[in-house]
Amino acid sequence: MANKLVKNAAGREVVAEINGQQAIPFKGVGKHKPEGRKYAPPISRCADYPDNGDKRVSTLKEALVKAGIKDGMTVSTHHHFRNGDLLANDLFDAVSELGIKDIRWFPSASFPCHEHIIQYIKDGTIHHIEGSMNGPLGKYVSEGNMRGMAVLRSHGGRYQAVQDGEVEIDIAVIGAPMADPFGNANGLEGDSACGLLGFALADSQYADKVIIVTDNMVPFPCIPWQIQGNYVDFTVEVPKLGIPERIVSGTTKITKSPDRLLLAELTAKFCDAAGIIRDGFSFQSGAGGTSLAVGEFFKSIMEEKGIKARFARGGSNKYLVSMLEEGLIDYILDGQTFDLDGVRSMRDDPRHVWTSPFTSYNYHGKGNFAPLVDVAILGATEVDVNFNANVVTHSDGYLLHGIGGWQNCLFSKTVILPLPLMRDRVPVIIDEVTTLCGPGELIDVIVTERGIAINPLRKDLIEAVKDSGLPLKPIKELKEEAERICGKPRKSKLDEKVIAAIKWVDGTVIDVVRKVIVE
Amino acid sequence: MANKLVKNAAGREVVAEINGQQAIPFKGVGKHKPEGRKYAPPISRCADYPDNGDKRVSTLKEALVKAGIKDGMTVSTHHHFRNGDLLANDLFDAVSELGIKDIRWFPSASFPCHEHIIQYIKDGTIHHIEGSMNGPLGKYVSEGNMRGMAVLRSHGGRYQAVQDGEVEIDIAVIGAPMADPFGNANGLEGDSACGLLGFALADSQYADKVIIVTDNMVPFPCIPWQIQGNYVDFTVEVPKLGIPERIVSGTTKITKSPDRLLLAELTAKFCDAAGIIRDGFSFQSGAGGTSLAVGEFFKSIMEEKGIKARFARGGSNKYLVSMLEEGLIDYILDGQTFDLDGVRSMRDDPRHVWTSPFTSYNYHGKGNFAPLVDVAILGATEVDVNFNANVVTHSDGYLLHGIGGWQNCLFSKTVILPLPLMRDRVPVIIDEVTTLCGPGELIDVIVTERGIAINPLRKDLIEAVKDSGLPLKPIKELKEEAERICGKPRKSKLDEKVIAAIKWVDGTVIDVVRKVIVE
Repeated sequence: MANKLVKNAAGREVVAEINGQQAIPFKGVGKHKPEGRKYAPPISRCADYPDNGDKRVSTLKEALVKAGIKDGMTVSTHHHFRNGDLLANDLFDAVSELGIKDIRWFPSASFPCHEHIIQYIKDGTIHHIEGSMNGPLGKYVSEGNMRGMAVLRSHGGRYQAVQDGEVEIDIAVIGAPMADPFGNANGLEGDSACGLLGFALADSQYADKVIIVTDNMVPFPCIPWQIQGNYVDFTVEVPKLGIPERIVSGTTKITKSPDRLLLAELTAKFCDAAGIIRDGFSFQSGAGGTSLAVGEFFKSIMEEKGIKARFARGGSNKYLVSMLEEGLIDYILDGQTFDLDGVRSMRDDPRHVWTSPFTSYNYHGKGNFAPLVDVAILGATEVDVNFNANVVTHSDGYLLHGIGGWQNCLFSKTVILPLPLMRDRVPVIIDEVTTLCGPGELIDVIVTERGIAINPLRKDLIEAVKDSGLPLKPIKELKEEAERICGKPRKSKLDEKVIAAIKWVDGTVIDVVRKVIVE
Repeated sequence: MANKLVKNAAGREVVAEINGQQAIPFKGVGKHKPEGRKYAPPISRCADYPDNGDKRVSTLKEALVKAGIKDGMTVSTHHHFRNGDLLANDLFDAVSELGIKDIRWFPSASFPCHEHIIQYIKDGTIHHIEGSMNGPLGKYVSEGNMRGMAVLRSHGGRYQAVQDGEVEIDIAVIGAPMADPFGNANGLEGDSACGLLGFALADSQYADKVIIVTDNMVPFPCIPWQIQGNYVDFTVEVPKLGIPERIVSGTTKITKSPDRLLLAELTAKFCDAAGIIRDGFSFQSGAGGTSLAVGEFFKSIMEEKGIKARFARGGSNKYLVSMLEEGLIDYILDGQTFDLDGVRSMRDDPRHVWTSPFTSYNYHGKGNFAPLVDVAILGATEVDVNFNANVVTHSDGYLLHGIGGWQNCLFSKTVILPLPLMRDRVPVIIDEVTTLCGPGELIDVIVTERGIAINPLRKDLIEAVKDSGLPLKPIKELKEEAERICGKPRKSKLDEKVIAAIKWVDGTVIDVVRKVIVE
């Protein structure tokens, strides 16, 4: 059955309904005015919880039963264990053994390690997934194999959806590298240490029932409590939550590719020329090889100028930690920890601060941290000539990546995307993105190995760098250069069927993803 | 007009209605089952807040106007500045200058320094106060001078009332010793440093509008954020929030009175004999001279036995901090900081943890910390022969004290009240308390200079100490001893008019306070 579609303010045809619930089409940046009130969880009372604070039950399955699991419920997980997560797989083994069907799985993201769960989409245990699907699950869903429609949200959008009651979580299952029997928990210590647990914050605050699962139970109090036991119903001990070397890979490395290093260097030079790298500035860059290299170039410039940054936003890793420890940054405001140096620093250094999607990204708050960041260096799979960008699908239409904090970071004062002009001989700058994830008006600069394009809306940046000697070019010219090399890309032919909706930070639908036609 | 009264489960005649709102009579400990959901504040959106995160306005008055202050609203404050607070007085000067009337003032407590505010009760600016009134305001209200009925709640009860929507705060005014323009705030640094800001947590989370007022504005980010700027609407800079020497007196001293020292020693000996002081135990004692002395006796016993406590609950002060620093306590879980050593320790030592009425005391949560404490040493103005206790009124009927965390701490595993048998020749153990604040079933031991009475419900304690040689006596015997010395106390004659309602931790009315007849 074809989906009923409406055209949104970005000109994209989007679904009017998602899994039977009415959806609001994107209205433009800052245009949607939510009405009503935050979601209100039921009032609990201490008399219904153990006097001695010991909320332990023997197994996750028992906890699920005590939490009242039944068909059609929404069950949430977090992704701080990344590709080393064992818990979500164990969870759905247990759900399946209980004979429960039609679960809405609401992970903050899923990874290749969750391929195990495909069997539970097949057998009806899971009705559909709302959350990023990196890799195999994305591929599976792209080919039209899931009954319900997937919904992808940014980290901030996920908090917003829970806070606003758009997604009501029945049971949150929160893996915790350290916890006490009362349910206080953190990600800082133990075999599964992952840094922080911010992606589970909304779940803990708003879910009807909250289960903490840990492989490192300590006597009360577990300090610090990144998750507060006062929100927790049950605690469970298991032998192993994750595979440590896949949780914190320790292998995040600065790129050695000359092309990527060039992108990084151009990006840093652009920031310097534009006056962004000044005493007390702030920046955010991702964990990819190019982003890490940008950080190293920033570091050199800062050392040369003798200045420091007020704060850097993480994803943290050893490079960012070294800048903190060398006094080049006053604070790291961290949302996710990518290596053991990040974990150690967060545990031991009070200047390495754990944040959450609430503080950093929630668009339905009284402000958030994202717009306070001077420059955000981000990635994309595609950008179009109007600076619109895609981060979730490839040019062949496959949905293989999550949004992460990407949409939220677009609110930074300056947003720069360092991108290779082509990948595998497919141009990255094109006429129209396969999937719209971020409106061009929020994307300021595209840095490629063959030139830098500045969004015409940013007259101030154009003025600031006009005499810098940097290779500035209109974005169309970059596109044409790529086409001269690779040829004009063909638009992939996709099925009519919508397999996923892409939410904007305010809960409206900015685009949809269609089923891939498998030949 | 006489108030309509109903008899509650404790046998007290209480009001059926408070300021026009229906009230629920106390039903017994753990008996009230709240229905419904937590209070849901309106959904905000970033687009309505400054992009650069700078929420500063020039004056508190301007912030009040921008927050939409109008007649009849509820305005809240916190009491971390104790008797050194200047902000609440400035606040009501501003409210009065704006010509606003009929405010419900909802402080977490008020102190003698707030005598200034009496004029605003007189002139109609304030309709009534819900919160503890220590000293002059209590006296003023006791004499029937306030239009509305006062409502007294414990720290946990205040959180519960806000969380459950029993009290909807229109505007929260939060004084912060350190803050950034975005509204992140803490109590740890600056001239007005007071330790933590936990009493304002509920206000920040649930108030419609939140104003941070600081005398120490720092660039974003203010670390740590005890109050999260994402809840804050406006920030205001003022020259001075409080009088430092009255915020952290630095004069909290262990009692030198031989009688009080005897009480403290007997209390510690009792705990030792009862097997409470064992490796890994936990305790909470107040900031009064006797409580401090109990702590010192605990310290000696622990040193002698070579054991340590897993945690101590604060109110913290230099004595508790020294135990932490000497390795006798693993953690201080602090709710309020009484001196500069406490502030320093909380700022610099990650084992000195800030808590809140949510984590520690909220009875409508999924458990709280109070029942996890092995022994709580508390005070009282009166105790009756059924172990019921009073902490708010004196025997003459005057309402001069707040409840604080006292009711919440009654859920500790063992509750001990060390009390002089008489004060100013008035017996402390009597037939029936003037005001019931805590049901006798939760109060385990009364320690007096002339003997120790154990609640008959605690057969385990009676058994544990039976051969200890401690001067154990039935409570009636202690009462009679006091009466032999002072004579049988006369019951004060009070007016019919109810001037205050006393809430239990679950929001029900456990007792009322009547107007004092001034002769």
